[in-house]
Amino acid sequence: MPDFAEPLARLIQEVKRLPGIGQKSAQRIAFHILRANREDVDRLATALIDVKEKLGLCIVCNNISDGELCVYCRDPHRDKTKICVIEEPHNLLAIETTRTFEGGYHVLHGSISPLRGVGPEQLRIKELLARLTTNEVQEIILATNPTVEGEATAVYLARLLKPLGIKVTRIAMGIPVGSDLEYADEVTMSKSLENRREM
Amino acid sequence: MPDFAEPLARLIQEVKRLPGIGQKSAQRIAFHILRANREDVDRLATALIDVKEKLGLCIVCNNISDGELCVYCRDPHRDKTKICVIEEPHNLLAIETTRTFEGGYHVLHGSISPLRGVGPEQLRIKELLARLTTNEVQEIILATNPTVEGEATAVYLARLLKPLGIKVTRIAMGIPVGSDLEYADEVTMSKSLENRREM
Repeated sequence: MPDFAEPLARLIQEVKRLPGIGQKSAQRIAFHILRANREDVDRLATALIDVKEKLGLCIVCNNISDGELCVYCRDPHRDKTKICVIEEPHNLLAIETTRTFEGGYHVLHGSISPLRGVGPEQLRIKELLARLTTNEVQEIILATNPTVEGEATAVYLARLLKPLGIKVTRIAMGIPVGSDLEYADEVTMSKSLENRREM
Repeated sequence: MPDFAEPLARLIQEVKRLPGIGQKSAQRIAFHILRANREDVDRLATALIDVKEKLGLCIVCNNISDGELCVYCRDPHRDKTKICVIEEPHNLLAIETTRTFEGGYHVLHGSISPLRGVGPEQLRIKELLARLTTNEVQEIILATNPTVEGEATAVYLARLLKPLGIKVTRIAMGIPVGSDLEYADEVTMSKSLENRREM
């Protein structure tokens, strides 16, 4: 490793800890910071601190929020009869970018994983049940990941929620749009066949 | 765009300004920050500010430095008879990682570019000439980029320095090691032929 002046070496080290950033990218970013305006760097540093200082979890859905209620729970235009259950706050992006879902969310903050020692009691499931006491909710869409853990969590929740007389649905798994059957793995392909729909 | 809580949206915006970071990477980094320890985030923010506050330019070679002299100019083991001239401080990395150059550096902070209105007087050339007055320097290696501007700068410096009786060399241009002739562009290929060496 070349000898960097200490503050530069330290910045490279810290930047490298970010996801998706290797040594080369970290160096590139560090040199960019070195050449950048002082005001721009201050804004970035403040934004970093503010995220830690000003954000908490929504008291209703456990999404990230700058107040008691998150933007979705605050929004009177969102359909309160549907709740989409997701594992992590960032999973919300994938759904919101479709612009097709108008309901609310519930963030579990994880998935059931005996291997990692995460059981249902570590997830925000009690909070989800608490939201169902008003009889307002008509459908729960389980949008946990299509992984072993996500699937286990979905199955667990379905068993828990169905006896309450609420419609419980699971997002469809199948061949991605625009891809080629040739590249589909066998599990996805068999899910796709299993979930076939009449045309 | 999904609605992010304001501090999170602002962090994504600021992170996106970094080189090589798009919307997806910025979101990933922002969510990582959200989950990270407060101490880790503080260290990153401090490292950013420190780079701007604590670093300046070496009074000898104009490399980035946390003191009057940079690590290379401070190092008594570096060969003071050779100076490698580079355009930008980060160009130094490419040379240092080879571990084959033991001399000193001189950073021009740019290259001659009539199109961008950069002439020789805007580069740190006077400072380079000042280093040659002691007769200690025996060779100047021109390691400016293999671009039109870098080449123009090298030619300009060679004309300026040769009359002073100093050996002036230019880094070799040719086919990259491990690549395939098939992928070489014609300029590189002709440089490679022109610079051929007897075996």
